[in-house]
Amino acid sequence: MAIVLGVNRYGKAENRVVRITRTGNTHEILDLNVTVQLSGEFAATHLTGDNSNVVPTDTMKNTVFALSHEFGALQPEAFALRVGRHFLTSHTHLCAAEVRIEKFDWERIICASTPSPRAFRRNGSMRRTASARVTRAGASTHEFVVSGLEDLVVLKTSDSEFSGFLRDKHTTLADATDRVMATEVSARWRIESTDGARLDANDWGSQFDRALDTMLTAFAEHHSLSLQQTLYLMGERVLAQERAIAAIRLSLPNKHHFLVDLSPFLRENRSEVYIAADRPYGLIEAVIQRDDAPPVAGEWPSW
Amino acid sequence: MAIVLGVNRYGKAENRVVRITRTGNTHEILDLNVTVQLSGEFAATHLTGDNSNVVPTDTMKNTVFALSHEFGALQPEAFALRVGRHFLTSHTHLCAAEVRIEKFDWERIICASTPSPRAFRRNGSMRRTASARVTRAGASTHEFVVSGLEDLVVLKTSDSEFSGFLRDKHTTLADATDRVMATEVSARWRIESTDGARLDANDWGSQFDRALDTMLTAFAEHHSLSLQQTLYLMGERVLAQERAIAAIRLSLPNKHHFLVDLSPFLRENRSEVYIAADRPYGLIEAVIQRDDAPPVAGEWPSW
Amino acid sequence: MAIVLGVNRYGKAENRVVRITRTGNTHEILDLNVTVQLSGEFAATHLTGDNSNVVPTDTMKNTVFALSHEFGALQPEAFALRVGRHFLTSHTHLCAAEVRIEKFDWERIICASTPSPRAFRRNGSMRRTASARVTRAGASTHEFVVSGLEDLVVLKTSDSEFSGFLRDKHTTLADATDRVMATEVSARWRIESTDGARLDANDWGSQFDRALDTMLTAFAEHHSLSLQQTLYLMGERVLAQERAIAAIRLSLPNKHHFLVDLSPFLRENRSEVYIAADRPYGLIEAVIQRDDAPPVAGEWPSW
Amino acid sequence: MAIVLGVNRYGKAENRVVRITRTGNTHEILDLNVTVQLSGEFAATHLTGDNSNVVPTDTMKNTVFALSHEFGALQPEAFALRVGRHFLTSHTHLCAAEVRIEKFDWERIICASTPSPRAFRRNGSMRRTASARVTRAGASTHEFVVSGLEDLVVLKTSDSEFSGFLRDKHTTLADATDRVMATEVSARWRIESTDGARLDANDWGSQFDRALDTMLTAFAEHHSLSLQQTLYLMGERVLAQERAIAAIRLSLPNKHHFLVDLSPFLRENRSEVYIAADRPYGLIEAVIQRDDAPPVAGEWPSW
Repeated sequence: MAIVLGVNRYGKAENRVVRITRTGNTHEILDLNVTVQLSGEFAATHLTGDNSNVVPTDTMKNTVFALSHEFGALQPEAFALRVGRHFLTSHTHLCAAEVRIEKFDWERIICASTPSPRAFRRNGSMRRTASARVTRAGASTHEFVVSGLEDLVVLKTSDSEFSGFLRDKHTTLADATDRVMATEVSARWRIESTDGARLDANDWGSQFDRALDTMLTAFAEHHSLSLQQTLYLMGERVLAQERAIAAIRLSLPNKHHFLVDLSPFLRENRSEVYIAADRPYGLIEAVIQRDDAPPVAGEWPSW
Repeated sequence: MAIVLGVNRYGKAENRVVRITRTGNTHEILDLNVTVQLSGEFAATHLTGDNSNVVPTDTMKNTVFALSHEFGALQPEAFALRVGRHFLTSHTHLCAAEVRIEKFDWERIICASTPSPRAFRRNGSMRRTASARVTRAGASTHEFVVSGLEDLVVLKTSDSEFSGFLRDKHTTLADATDRVMATEVSARWRIESTDGARLDANDWGSQFDRALDTMLTAFAEHHSLSLQQTLYLMGERVLAQERAIAAIRLSLPNKHHFLVDLSPFLRENRSEVYIAADRPYGLIEAVIQRDDAPPVAGEWPSW
Repeated sequence: MAIVLGVNRYGKAENRVVRITRTGNTHEILDLNVTVQLSGEFAATHLTGDNSNVVPTDTMKNTVFALSHEFGALQPEAFALRVGRHFLTSHTHLCAAEVRIEKFDWERIICASTPSPRAFRRNGSMRRTASARVTRAGASTHEFVVSGLEDLVVLKTSDSEFSGFLRDKHTTLADATDRVMATEVSARWRIESTDGARLDANDWGSQFDRALDTMLTAFAEHHSLSLQQTLYLMGERVLAQERAIAAIRLSLPNKHHFLVDLSPFLRENRSEVYIAADRPYGLIEAVIQRDDAPPVAGEWPSW
Repeated sequence: MAIVLGVNRYGKAENRVVRITRTGNTHEILDLNVTVQLSGEFAATHLTGDNSNVVPTDTMKNTVFALSHEFGALQPEAFALRVGRHFLTSHTHLCAAEVRIEKFDWERIICASTPSPRAFRRNGSMRRTASARVTRAGASTHEFVVSGLEDLVVLKTSDSEFSGFLRDKHTTLADATDRVMATEVSARWRIESTDGARLDANDWGSQFDRALDTMLTAFAEHHSLSLQQTLYLMGERVLAQERAIAAIRLSLPNKHHFLVDLSPFLRENRSEVYIAADRPYGLIEAVIQRDDAPPVAGEWPSW
């Protein structure tokens, strides 16, 4: 029974690329955090320290910045694909390149009702994400794109119930017919096509904006009987609207807001004063998908 | 030469109070993080463990929630004053109460161009802050209010120089005539009046909005020769506009964005691709004040 | 083409359980952060809001604390198994329970060379981890245990090279024959047996201590030609020593320390002064396994 | 009523200096995070953008690394003094230099019972701190040193009471005669002498070790009637032992551990199972000092 090297990958994480585009005196800003990870024939460096197949992570960093210069201000999905393709094309001993990107949003500062041409304010804590995994399949490549977002914090003060749940000997929770529902949305959706040309034709920015708007509207308008039901509706609406999306994974912490008992102070708290709790918190996770969505391996969940 | 108890205070930190106000089917949300600290005759508990003068921090927590219920959705400065006054009025052995508040902003979710009446999205990482220190002065009290903000991240892609600086034997920096300027604004401004009635008449929300807008506009429009100059202008403009503000303290980290050298790859980087650095960072701090502003003790800086 | 619910799970995350054991006047402390996630027949709550199958996450919290009381100070792997088995045994509509635990270490405070019987100091930032996934397989259950650690920060000032690597047009890195090597070890190792009785007989504490010691010694003694080689050696040594371990996954960020160029100040920096960089960083990840280790699904990596 | 520039300072924050000292094949590591801030005649850059008096923060960074090379592995207080003196000596328009240092601890990895000569493990989350403020006073300088520590997490499972406290209409807390006491110690102590020669003769390392040991022993051995009493004893013991220390400031969050109510599950929780809470938390702060300690300005607290 021998000991062997199993799956492995390596790369440069968190390259902070800020790309400025100038059109006359008006500037655009694209602010990305780019992580690259490569897989391939890397047994030698693990087993003997022979690095002749190793693209240094320092080179990956240089490549990310040079490609940002070459390609300009692409959508993050498009840039991730370009970077992944570059590595697979350049080095035949690679079998896969994964590029993960966080995009930070900026909005123009408003001066006397006019958006500034060159000054910006960081907009919110939500981050748009994109990743592309480009794998070699014989003479061609296979491309897999996942878009998403992190840290979208939402709360509704009403239209949320939780009752009729299973009771066992450890249950002390009372039914709630009117509670605060708050969560921090993490979402990732994967794209149906693995055809590079079709991927390149995707309008990533519009697709993201529509998906975000759809999820927010579903959260706001829905009368919720459980956070699971809300989660499902958010995912279902995105799939119903976006034909290019094969599946969506949502991870929703239940950020509990407890009604404070003010009766010792002779006050009746009619859903007015809550304490926001940190830990523990509920955690609801699910994939919503088309029934003909092909299965995928890798970081896509498979619990 | 004896060992003695010096200045001391204690309290309950980070009470997370979420206050919902219902007007028919439309709800408002006020989301605060409230810290209370009391000073007074507390030598006994330190020296002998006699707690008869000690208001438990658990009681402070209860008080904050009960007062939030009683007073409703006040501006954070007004609520800080109410809480501080409550403790000084209730307990004659207290000499000071300090109440510090962080306010988290929420905006309504937009559904089909209409703001939702009861669903919200957390808006940004910037936090508004307010603190009130109420101290006993004989039969009356003295009140000191500081407003401010944290984590306002701004960036300008142009109109920023840094040159003509002092050179010594450790200087390697080159003059910069066109650089990215980015910072994360921390600001605190203190209010002139110590007259409770006048403080209560202050329109804290409008004052905050104007101060924020003034600082953003100064940052955006200014052609900067140094971050110090930008800092001073931001503070000066706030004071010029707001008569009630006696002084403003700004703390501006210089979040460096370095132009990436792409010449090894035969690319000319014309202010297009930058790397955002984490550490070290510059840190510029100053107080801008009216020349007749009275000196203050306490946490207001006095380096 | 219909839209359907895919894989899903939910639970209560980060239950902070502190378990005190008293033996006369000597106390032991066990400090855990416990996350529970359940899978099973939960389509109804997603699709219609019917919660009759839903064990509330509040009940999971109660259960974790009650079982901690019942079982006493178990090793984290043993406690994770007990909690997982409890849920599967109690509720037939569950198909899997996953319990993930972080364990925080405390050491006794030393008073005049004597360990205190009841006072402790938190020991380090490293956290031991353990997870158990209990799944239903017909009339019996299948159990899968992973142990590990997070945030073990190590550094060696010598015996580390990186040279002979692949060079392409984006390479600017020079060969290094003497560099600082620093990393923050994340390790997870899975246990061969799925036989509950054998799992229960495992001496989890000793196994962890030996694995930690083996990895530290390998890191310290090894003359490294690449971080990959060091990673492989650390994993290989653990497997060579611990027969019960089927595979180990290591994730090692390369925490870069750059030699500072002091030549402008007429100083020759002979591997004496380094700057510790934050981002970007290298990231080296691999699984080392026995060649007859059975494949596993789920959160175990399968890139 | 004019608007004027008030107190101001600027500098380079968080220079991460790792200093290796080689004695034959045995290496020592000194790992510091160094922040420099300068005050002086800087009105011009604020008011007009004239930078001729401005030492760039980039130069400060270079200086810190060059002085680390020149001076070798000094104790952090000694290094802070050297850096501060360097700036005041080099530039006559400076009136003050403040240097703040965090020191991260490393211990040698043990290989087969032998400490490794060149491999280290990061030891804990506690950080030792040191700061020196060097101010110009006519032809000479005034030096002020503060030592301390952050993030020393301690817990005792017994010997802690809290009862007999003041009760008012918002009090619901019950007396506790046996509770868990846990805190995260932040301590800063200032040195009596302002005589540079005497400061340089101070054995900073031994002083720190003794102060830490004294505080830990006081915490462990004390039967506590309040966290305030414990705080006072910890400070008093340090002052009683260390003649060179004029005053000590302690800031102790009360990290609450609540006994979990298991009675709904027919279990009697006899001080065995606790939940560790995050927020809100108590916060106890005080200065303990010699009664002839001279007052100080600046960042030393003066609430």
